[in-house]
Amino acid sequence: MSTHIRQTDPFRWDGIAVSAYKPGGTHFAGISRQLLFDGGEGLACQLRYFEVDPGGYSSLERHRHAHAIMVIRGMGRALVGDRILDLATHDLVGVPPLTWHQFRAGGGVPFGFLCMVDCGRDTPERPDAEALAALRGDPVIAAFIRV
Amino acid sequence: MSTHIRQTDPFRWDGIAVSAYKPGGTHFAGISRQLLFDGGEGLACQLRYFEVDPGGYSSLERHRHAHAIMVIRGMGRALVGDRILDLATHDLVGVPPLTWHQFRAGGGVPFGFLCMVDCGRDTPERPDAEALAALRGDPVIAAFIRV
Repeated sequence: MSTHIRQTDPFRWDGIAVSAYKPGGTHFAGISRQLLFDGGEGLACQLRYFEVDPGGYSSLERHRHAHAIMVIRGMGRALVGDRILDLATHDLVGVPPLTWHQFRAGGGVPFGFLCMVDCGRDTPERPDAEALAALRGDPVIAAFIRV
Repeated sequence: MSTHIRQTDPFRWDGIAVSAYKPGGTHFAGISRQLLFDGGEGLACQLRYFEVDPGGYSSLERHRHAHAIMVIRGMGRALVGDRILDLATHDLVGVPPLTWHQFRAGGGVPFGFLCMVDCGRDTPERPDAEALAALRGDPVIAAFIRV
């Protein structure tokens, strides 16, 4: 049957757990994950909501699947490929396959964004020493990234 | 490469056309469509933004593909299956396969929602006389629907 899931508090939804961003690690900080839609019959994608606290950041990673992102809370910055983007509410970001990316909160408020992904997708890859050295060849990127 | 598409005016995006909801017909009113993400390599779904003016409504229809919806502007109401839902900003609605649905603006302001769908999907079906009679068997639904 149909589902209607109400927003109960700002950016929190009835019955949807605020989960850990990833099972574990020290390569991310101050970020949570809520699975809003899990795909299923007639729907090949998931829609997740990620929220980054001030000072927080997502994992620096890449993968074969793409991301389709809409900021819906606050503002932030992102590395996507070789560009640092300044992101405001309702901005859209496409992250193509095999493109390094990392999201960071931008100010004193939470930074929240929707992220649409295929249900069937590959595991993210983190940069090895060689990839990190290449990324750090650009001083702006070197100053931005957190690993 | 990566894409960053800024919101230029509220709920309007740089370079994204505000399109007709459907090619033609009189079974919908006061509704526009913007294609935010078109799927592509590594992404099996589209993300669209629909906006319904006060008094407007989407088509009453069903199909085998599902909808995953988040309200991001204003408020509205929806028929999904046999229920009329009151929808506020950031509420989520799942429309399962083969479920009759219609969205209507709820007040004096635009009602806008994101809708995630499979890129490969079937054509919507409108109710025939028999299906309409069944829907109208419920007086609340009869009063709600627009055809």
